[in-house]
Amino acid sequence: MQPIIECVPNFSEGRDAPKIEAIENAIASADGAVVLHRTSDPDHNRSVITFAGPPEAVLEGAVRAAAAAAKLIDLRVHKGVHPRLGALDVLPFVPVRGATLEDCITLAHRAGERIWRELSVPVYLYEAAARQPTRQRLENVRRGEFEEIREAALVDKSRQPDIGGPALHPTAGAVIVGARRFLIAFNINLQTSDLQIAKDVARAIRTSSGGLPAVKALGLPLVSRNLVQVSMNLTDFQLTGLYAVYNEVERHAAQHGIGIAGTELIGLMPRAAIEEAAASFLKLESFDSQRIVENRIESVVESGK
Amino acid sequence: MQPIIECVPNFSEGRDAPKIEAIENAIASADGAVVLHRTSDPDHNRSVITFAGPPEAVLEGAVRAAAAAAKLIDLRVHKGVHPRLGALDVLPFVPVRGATLEDCITLAHRAGERIWRELSVPVYLYEAAARQPTRQRLENVRRGEFEEIREAALVDKSRQPDIGGPALHPTAGAVIVGARRFLIAFNINLQTSDLQIAKDVARAIRTSSGGLPAVKALGLPLVSRNLVQVSMNLTDFQLTGLYAVYNEVERHAAQHGIGIAGTELIGLMPRAAIEEAAASFLKLESFDSQRIVENRIESVVESGK
Repeated sequence: MQPIIECVPNFSEGRDAPKIEAIENAIASADGAVVLHRTSDPDHNRSVITFAGPPEAVLEGAVRAAAAAAKLIDLRVHKGVHPRLGALDVLPFVPVRGATLEDCITLAHRAGERIWRELSVPVYLYEAAARQPTRQRLENVRRGEFEEIREAALVDKSRQPDIGGPALHPTAGAVIVGARRFLIAFNINLQTSDLQIAKDVARAIRTSSGGLPAVKALGLPLVSRNLVQVSMNLTDFQLTGLYAVYNEVERHAAQHGIGIAGTELIGLMPRAAIEEAAASFLKLESFDSQRIVENRIESVVESGK
Repeated sequence: MQPIIECVPNFSEGRDAPKIEAIENAIASADGAVVLHRTSDPDHNRSVITFAGPPEAVLEGAVRAAAAAAKLIDLRVHKGVHPRLGALDVLPFVPVRGATLEDCITLAHRAGERIWRELSVPVYLYEAAARQPTRQRLENVRRGEFEEIREAALVDKSRQPDIGGPALHPTAGAVIVGARRFLIAFNINLQTSDLQIAKDVARAIRTSSGGLPAVKALGLPLVSRNLVQVSMNLTDFQLTGLYAVYNEVERHAAQHGIGIAGTELIGLMPRAAIEEAAASFLKLESFDSQRIVENRIESVVESGK
C-alpha cells in the first residue's frame, strides 16, 4: 500500500475566513493532498489544518501552504495570544502508514529547503528533524517570538535559522519545520469518583515515573459522570499501543478493586493502531493486515491489476 | 465510502491453466473488478476465483465470467469428483462494506437476467436470492448434476430454472446464482489436549444447540500442537462478531479451568469485523470508522475534494 504522511500546518491567521479558505485551497490544490480537518481560534488568531496523502503530495501541499501564508499574512500587524514566529508558524510531518519517522525527517528537510529557495522564508528545524539538540523543543525555537527573534537572528548565531537567513522574512518571519510520530490521545474512564485512584494509575503507567514506554498520563475528574479518567497520550503507538495501555490500566485499577467504565479516542488514529489492538486482544496468530478484504483490494489495485 | 461487494464464482475447470487464466482475465477486464484470490483443484476439476469491487463492477465481472466459462468449458466432456451443474457453476454475491444482503439479492437477480438474456444460459437462484424455499440449499438445486438435471428440466417443473430455460444450455448447463452474507472462518485453540473440552465448548456456543446466533462450531484435535480447537464459521458477523465468540469461548473454557492458547483467521475478513472487535475489547464509547485516518482520507477523496 502506498505510504501516507500527515502534515499539520499551524498558521498565524484565525479570524479572516477568506484568507484561511485560501490557504486551505492552496493545500488541496496539490494533487493527492487531502484536507482532513481544520480549526481556527480567533483569540489565538491561529488556524490548524490537518492534511494527508502520499509523501510527494504532502511535500507539495506543505510548500503551497507556506507560499499562501507568506502572501496573505503580515506578521508586523498580527496580534493573538498564542506565540508565533511565522505566517506559516509550525509545520510538522507525521508518519501514518508505510513510512517511518526518518522518512518524515527527510521530508521536513526537503520542505525546508524548498521554502527557503522558492519563497525566501528561512526555516528552523525542530523535534525529530532538529539539527541542533536545543531545537528539539519547539518552545526553545520560538522563545521571544517574531518581534524579538528577527532582531536576535541578525546578531546572535544561536538564534539564526537552520536553512536560509540569517535575516527573517520581513512579513512572513520563519517557518518551524519538524517531524514527529503520530500521537494517539486515548482516555480510560474508571468506575469510581475517587480522583486519587486515577492519579495513582496514571503515575503507575506513565513513562516519566517508570511505567510503559512512550506514554504520557494524567488522572483527571469527570465530574459530569461522577467518574475519574486516566487521560493519555501515546507518543509512539508502535512501541506501546492501545492493547498494552488498556491492559496495564485495567491491571492497576483492579489492584484498587476498580473496573473500567469505558474509553474514548480523541481525534483520529492510524488504521495500524486499531488492527494491532484487535489482533492482540483476539490473540490472533500470524495476523497481517492483508487478511482484511479492503486492504487486500487496495494492495492489488495499487500493484496494478 | 463506496460500497464493496465480493463475488466468488466456482468454475468447472481445474486443469487447463490457459482456460482458467482466460476466465480470470475476463473478470479483471471489468473496470473496477479486482481479483483477490484463485484456487484450482485438478481432482475436482474446478476453480474458485474471489473478486471484489463496487456493485456495478462486480455485476459486469460476473457476467463476463459467465460468458468466458460458457465459451471455454463443455460440460459434456467435463469430469471431476465435485458435483456441478454449469460451466460457471455457482455465483454467490457477498456484501463486504456499505451494502446489505438485500443489495446482493438484487445484484444476483440482475446477474441472472443478464446471463440468460446475453448468453442463453439459464439460471437457478439459491440461498438468500432463492425464489423457491427449497432452493435456498445449494445441494437441493444441484442434486443429480448436469447429466440428470438437463433431462429432468424438460419434463419436471420442479427442476426447471428460475430464469430462462426450461432447457439447459447444451454445453454450459446452468448457473446457480445466489447471495449470502460474508462468512468469517475463525478458530480458537485451547490450552489442553482433551478433545472433549473443545467439543463441549463448541456445543455450548453454536446456534444449533442454543448458543450464540449465526455461529457454527466444531471441536477438533490439533495433534501437531497437542492442543484442541474450537473451529467456527461466523455466518453473520454483524449479529455475532469476533469479540462475542472470543468472550463466550473464553468463558466456557474457563469453566473447565482451561485458557485460550491462540486463535487463527482462515482466509479474509471485512474491515468492519476487525474494527468492531477492537472497539468492543477497548470499550470505546461512540467509536465510528471515520476516526481512522485512512478511512477518513478515503471518504474525503470519494466525496470529492
